[in-house]
Amino acid sequence: MTRPSSVPPPVTAVLDASSRWLPARLGEVEELLREAVAGHGENLGEDAGATLGAGGKRLRPMLVLLCAGPERSDAAIRAATAIELVHMATLVHDDVLDDAPLRRGLPTVAATSGRERATATGDLLFSRAFALLAETGDARSVALLADASVALARGELAQRRDAFDLGLDEERYLWRCRLKTGRLFECACLLGRDDEALREFGAEIGLAFQLLDDVLDVSGPPERTGKARGTDLLDGTVTLPLIEAAAADPGIREADLQALDAAGAEALCDRIAATGALDRVRAHALEMVATAKWALERAAFEPEQRQLLALVADGVVQRYS
Amino acid sequence: MTRPSSVPPPVTAVLDASSRWLPARLGEVEELLREAVAGHGENLGEDAGATLGAGGKRLRPMLVLLCAGPERSDAAIRAATAIELVHMATLVHDDVLDDAPLRRGLPTVAATSGRERATATGDLLFSRAFALLAETGDARSVALLADASVALARGELAQRRDAFDLGLDEERYLWRCRLKTGRLFECACLLGRDDEALREFGAEIGLAFQLLDDVLDVSGPPERTGKARGTDLLDGTVTLPLIEAAAADPGIREADLQALDAAGAEALCDRIAATGALDRVRAHALEMVATAKWALERAAFEPEQRQLLALVADGVVQRYS
Repeated sequence: MTRPSSVPPPVTAVLDASSRWLPARLGEVEELLREAVAGHGENLGEDAGATLGAGGKRLRPMLVLLCAGPERSDAAIRAATAIELVHMATLVHDDVLDDAPLRRGLPTVAATSGRERATATGDLLFSRAFALLAETGDARSVALLADASVALARGELAQRRDAFDLGLDEERYLWRCRLKTGRLFECACLLGRDDEALREFGAEIGLAFQLLDDVLDVSGPPERTGKARGTDLLDGTVTLPLIEAAAADPGIREADLQALDAAGAEALCDRIAATGALDRVRAHALEMVATAKWALERAAFEPEQRQLLALVADGVVQRYS
Repeated sequence: MTRPSSVPPPVTAVLDASSRWLPARLGEVEELLREAVAGHGENLGEDAGATLGAGGKRLRPMLVLLCAGPERSDAAIRAATAIELVHMATLVHDDVLDDAPLRRGLPTVAATSGRERATATGDLLFSRAFALLAETGDARSVALLADASVALARGELAQRRDAFDLGLDEERYLWRCRLKTGRLFECACLLGRDDEALREFGAEIGLAFQLLDDVLDVSGPPERTGKARGTDLLDGTVTLPLIEAAAADPGIREADLQALDAAGAEALCDRIAATGALDRVRAHALEMVATAKWALERAAFEPEQRQLLALVADGVVQRYS
């Protein structure tokens, strides 16, 4: 496997530390991802292919593979591919909803092909995920992924329902993040290995991942995150940095998110950052990573496997994209 | 089970002919549908519930149950529920894409809750379908439904790609209908019973169903179909009635679908009807029903079961909604 030049440093650390087996497995996943979206006659898979080609950290497949361990397993490779397909499906649908122009610095499917095609492309990716997993004949895996997908959709619905509500509290925010992000990370780990300790590990790093995402939306810089600062604010998505900032600077609660433009969103980002909220949210995310690593100690792993998973846990809060 | 008053006559015929077992099973499906969209905390399932409550013919569940036979089977009831959830998911997504105001004479989720929530609601229904099926531990069923869902999304993508193309030919139209409609009917039959003869039976009645749908879009009347005439034309969806009509009246090919308004769509519907195209498409659909019944003869069914399935086949071309 040729490592893409865009791979962020913490992921590189995991790839290096795993000597040769992880990059080789990830290469197989990449190939299966390509197969999964191709072979659908003419250029129907072209939008899906574009989403795929835009890259990404492949964090969820990496978790599946690391939890499954160094011995090659066809089931793990399929599961790793399936979970990334579900993740990609939700990204494509998210971009339809948000009318987002860019994702990872490249135009979204919704922007290039219209939301009609993007909705169907998301459905295609989603269906291929289940088709791929069902081929293994492993009903436990299908059940895990289906349940995580239900949680994801519920989280998405909750986020839409909460939009523009500056009265949102931390508890509700965290509950939503558990559904929207935590459950798929948890699922990735459990797909790799049937070990209850991994449930907490996955959920916590998923939460930490989401918290950092929300910090990056406020802090930027856009040239590293690949999107404009304040994108969440413009969508009306109230996140922990905003909730924390409003606690320190109650005037923030008077902001009219519905009336916000790009310049207003940047100004609000600056005001949030000035309260020190970003550091507090980062600290919160680091605590979650610590909890995750604590849970990892209870899982019956070889030292190398545990060390690699700990590197991934650290990586989710040391990144820009 | 209390039979909904909106049940169309051919379905009623099947329900009556099956004495008591089919209505009882359909009642169980209805209950499971309700459970599948409820129990997701607060009112997140409310949009999904609305889609469910709007009714529908439950043709796909009926096919699963009829193919499975009179003996009660938990697997068949779950499969029947899962396939209807997938169908509902695609309806919700279709309405997002089309910005459709009405479905079955009632406001769509997209219209009442916005397309953001509708996209997530569709994803939720879709995920619940696979979660439900996975619980049975039957990987064959999951694979069947996943493959049909892939076909559906491909058909949807193809339809979007073909939009406004008056050069579309019958072959491409039929290929698209096979993906978009035929495969899910086929899947319903195979979920009910593992019998290769049912593949052709399901596919043919699915095609006939779609052809009649496309006739009804042109013929109306709106008070019976629950939607305005020419809805497909306004979306740019070129269907067989239009293709057939253009062969008889080449001037039709000069129509500018992109510039069409509601009145223009009605006028084009009249012009299509005037060519006799609707009768030709209806005759085509009837041939497909005959092929389906022919395939049915090869399946190893008891006479009663075969007779009920033949009634469903007849029913798909004797309906208004």
